[in-house]
Amino acid sequence: MKALLKEIRHNPLLWLLAFVPVLFACHKLRPESHTLLFVLSVFAIVPLAALLSHATESVAAKTGDAVGGLLNATLGNLTELVIALTALRAGQYMLVKASIAGAIVTNTLFMLGASFLLGGLKHHVQEYNRVSARMQAGLLFLATVALLIPSAVSEADSAAGAAFTQKLSMGLAVLLIVSYGLSMLFSLKTHRELFASAEHAEAGEAPWPLGLALATLGGVTVLVALVSEIFVESVQKAAEAFGMSQAFVGFIVVALVGGAAEMASAFSGARKNRLDLSVGIALGSASQIALFVAPMLVLVSYFIGPTPMDLQFWPGAVVMMLVATLTASLVTNSGRSAWFIGVLVLMVYAIFALTLYLLPPKVQ
Amino acid sequence: MKALLKEIRHNPLLWLLAFVPVLFACHKLRPESHTLLFVLSVFAIVPLAALLSHATESVAAKTGDAVGGLLNATLGNLTELVIALTALRAGQYMLVKASIAGAIVTNTLFMLGASFLLGGLKHHVQEYNRVSARMQAGLLFLATVALLIPSAVSEADSAAGAAFTQKLSMGLAVLLIVSYGLSMLFSLKTHRELFASAEHAEAGEAPWPLGLALATLGGVTVLVALVSEIFVESVQKAAEAFGMSQAFVGFIVVALVGGAAEMASAFSGARKNRLDLSVGIALGSASQIALFVAPMLVLVSYFIGPTPMDLQFWPGAVVMMLVATLTASLVTNSGRSAWFIGVLVLMVYAIFALTLYLLPPKVQ
Amino acid sequence: MKALLKEIRHNPLLWLLAFVPVLFACHKLRPESHTLLFVLSVFAIVPLAALLSHATESVAAKTGDAVGGLLNATLGNLTELVIALTALRAGQYMLVKASIAGAIVTNTLFMLGASFLLGGLKHHVQEYNRVSARMQAGLLFLATVALLIPSAVSEADSAAGAAFTQKLSMGLAVLLIVSYGLSMLFSLKTHRELFASAEHAEAGEAPWPLGLALATLGGVTVLVALVSEIFVESVQKAAEAFGMSQAFVGFIVVALVGGAAEMASAFSGARKNRLDLSVGIALGSASQIALFVAPMLVLVSYFIGPTPMDLQFWPGAVVMMLVATLTASLVTNSGRSAWFIGVLVLMVYAIFALTLYLLPPKVQ
Repeated sequence: MKALLKEIRHNPLLWLLAFVPVLFACHKLRPESHTLLFVLSVFAIVPLAALLSHATESVAAKTGDAVGGLLNATLGNLTELVIALTALRAGQYMLVKASIAGAIVTNTLFMLGASFLLGGLKHHVQEYNRVSARMQAGLLFLATVALLIPSAVSEADSAAGAAFTQKLSMGLAVLLIVSYGLSMLFSLKTHRELFASAEHAEAGEAPWPLGLALATLGGVTVLVALVSEIFVESVQKAAEAFGMSQAFVGFIVVALVGGAAEMASAFSGARKNRLDLSVGIALGSASQIALFVAPMLVLVSYFIGPTPMDLQFWPGAVVMMLVATLTASLVTNSGRSAWFIGVLVLMVYAIFALTLYLLPPKVQ
Repeated sequence: MKALLKEIRHNPLLWLLAFVPVLFACHKLRPESHTLLFVLSVFAIVPLAALLSHATESVAAKTGDAVGGLLNATLGNLTELVIALTALRAGQYMLVKASIAGAIVTNTLFMLGASFLLGGLKHHVQEYNRVSARMQAGLLFLATVALLIPSAVSEADSAAGAAFTQKLSMGLAVLLIVSYGLSMLFSLKTHRELFASAEHAEAGEAPWPLGLALATLGGVTVLVALVSEIFVESVQKAAEAFGMSQAFVGFIVVALVGGAAEMASAFSGARKNRLDLSVGIALGSASQIALFVAPMLVLVSYFIGPTPMDLQFWPGAVVMMLVATLTASLVTNSGRSAWFIGVLVLMVYAIFALTLYLLPPKVQ
Repeated sequence: MKALLKEIRHNPLLWLLAFVPVLFACHKLRPESHTLLFVLSVFAIVPLAALLSHATESVAAKTGDAVGGLLNATLGNLTELVIALTALRAGQYMLVKASIAGAIVTNTLFMLGASFLLGGLKHHVQEYNRVSARMQAGLLFLATVALLIPSAVSEADSAAGAAFTQKLSMGLAVLLIVSYGLSMLFSLKTHRELFASAEHAEAGEAPWPLGLALATLGGVTVLVALVSEIFVESVQKAAEAFGMSQAFVGFIVVALVGGAAEMASAFSGARKNRLDLSVGIALGSASQIALFVAPMLVLVSYFIGPTPMDLQFWPGAVVMMLVATLTASLVTNSGRSAWFIGVLVLMVYAIFALTLYLLPPKVQ
């Protein structure tokens, strides 16, 4: 408990925890002020995500490399998963899909691009482990192909109906999860020496004792779930109030909020010239969402949603995911970076954000 | 003749030759049992393809490098060409196109991916000649662009009618064949030193005497033509009986059957850590189909088909060819491989196969 | 003035200057013979473009590296800019857009491919600076994404109307110009050592005195503007007379005419085994058009056109720009070239040219 308090004292991000009780109070007292609740829940999720991420890493550090890597790989995007599950239960499939696509695009373009830019402003040229970056980019490419196929086929064949899309999504979900499992076997077991630098670098912060870590993991997950409920409830009305399209909220706002904690680590790694760490977090997080969170949601939707969810995305989102993946592949191919590479990647993100922002609100 | 018999005794794949007379007998006695005829013809084509491939290589070995390379390059996909010609004469353009697209996708993804996986299960990391892989991937990319254009333009402009597509297909066919001819000039003549490893590696098996090889080449081609006729006749009805879409049959079944012999060579090369050979067969075979077989069929369709064939593919097939080519480019870029790379490539193939399998049968 | 005359005597391309007065005389005497005027204006633009290009380089050589690079980078495509401005004022947005897309595709594929081929016919294998080629390819990729988005979104959402496209185009134009500015900061200032070879190579020809250069720049720009006016007036009728689609004229003819002077430099560089120079001119010119000329035209259209111009291209043109950019990325990735690489790239261009040539004239 003392370790937790010390952590909170030293990490300004965690001071935002004060917003959690404020949010609950507001929700009780003024359940109709959606815009206020939306803003408060955004500020409340950020520190909770940071706590979750640190707790996961602490448990991982105690359990040895293989199990630890596994834990990190499955719980690393717990925040995104909980938010998506809440939206899923509320039947808001559009929001779920937008937040999946948005998390992939934001991690690949914004987190990677900003890391390159921030690192490049301090260091003239930076080098990083290409092998690891290539595997992550390859995984992402695979996942994008899987997510692209249902939309491409139903575009090409109007005869291919909803039943087809549903069965296909189910099959793709299984293929993606199997690929994800095999990728962990590869990087944690059979070829771990290729990924050495990225793995060791993550042991930067002092881990918590196991008990505290586990308790934090449990408690904070419950809090994230409660906050997410308010967030999902208020997001649609708040978006209208701000004049933002729902696509913009799902793609950009939810993705930035859910990934805030990882971004803090990625950016600090880049400033310390440990770009391996930044690239690993950015691409690893994106491929985790594409290969684990997204298919998991499809499978879970058979049990908790009003109807099963499929993997058919809005065609514009498919184009964006594909472009993001291609950008990451082209950019990480050389294993070197300078500030302008970051600008290029961020510009692609800015193009997408601008497009989504300007989209007429009715359009999904 | 003794060499032929010895070859048959030592190669279990050739024991399937027994299916050839069985097939002919069945066709005579029970011409209505399409499903049986379909299965028998599949089993009969596989060993014939293996014989054709060995005979071509033997002739090539006797005639010196340049002519031999040329022979290999033009007759290497003789099986696919004969099957497609039979379907063309029967006016089954859908099947022809599906088998072209399927052969490209299957060679690029299944043959390449399984080679990487099988090789990687035995060897920790494998290296191969990047230069040769890059040229093949470049050729494939060019061919995919050519095959993509008629569909993309007729999608974009409904005013662009059938006459336009026909003239365009004719022109593209000529451009592709010219490119293919120049690629042989490059790899067999002006820059052959860059392709050294891949070429020499192919001289693995003991070649037959020239007379036997030529006789086999002639006789087996006739047999393949006869078997193909039964295959093309029965495939549609059999597909219905198995509940498979015609797209799945053309794309996956025909492509796997036609390429069985080459796959055997590619896989055995990968196990022996001669990945140059495997990559050369997989990508070489795919680009040969795209740059030689496909345009040849367009030109020949002016003489033997009921109407000329164009190069306008089902949009879904175009997406799959494009993704397959991009995957091959990204994956062979580094010249190194491990088992997981094979898994990634095979997963993309599995995604396509699943999609085609689930497609409603009516849809093409 | 003597320097100018000497230049004209030694450069056969400049003898075409004789066509300028002939054109003006014809326009006065026979304003209805559109085909003749079209042919004459094509021949008149080529030497004017060569003069403009030499004058710009001469001014750049006198003003030191940073300002010189800046000048070269903004005035290097002055001919294309003037032609496009003339078409813009005449409200011919189709022609403006076709000439933008065509200049990108022609510079990326024809200029690059022909340089590789011409260089490769003389030198067995050629090497060049990958870093510079990669940055240019990255910039081009970014620009293509920006140009692709308005078409992709309006394809996906019919609800997204003209007002959305207009606002989006405006925003994208600003993002592109900012990226272009930052790319100059990167290559001329913070990381200029990475681009050394390409920069020094450009100082090949003897520069003119500053006064002459500035006078030429001014005078020739006026001449180009006058000739462009006749060109734009006559192009549509001439295209009909020749049986060419307007798309073919905009994409291929205007692009080849506008880029003739740069092509002469690029090809001569390739023959002299200075492929850095050729690749720099080809990709640099393409990215300059995409990141500077195109957005500039959007911004300027608010003041001089009948209505503002947007960045929504014909879908076929978007596919071509995307393929051209991908081809350039894949091909320049290795930093080595041989003649067949040139053939591959030229074949892609030939496929596009053939498609546009065969397009029914009505279709845009």
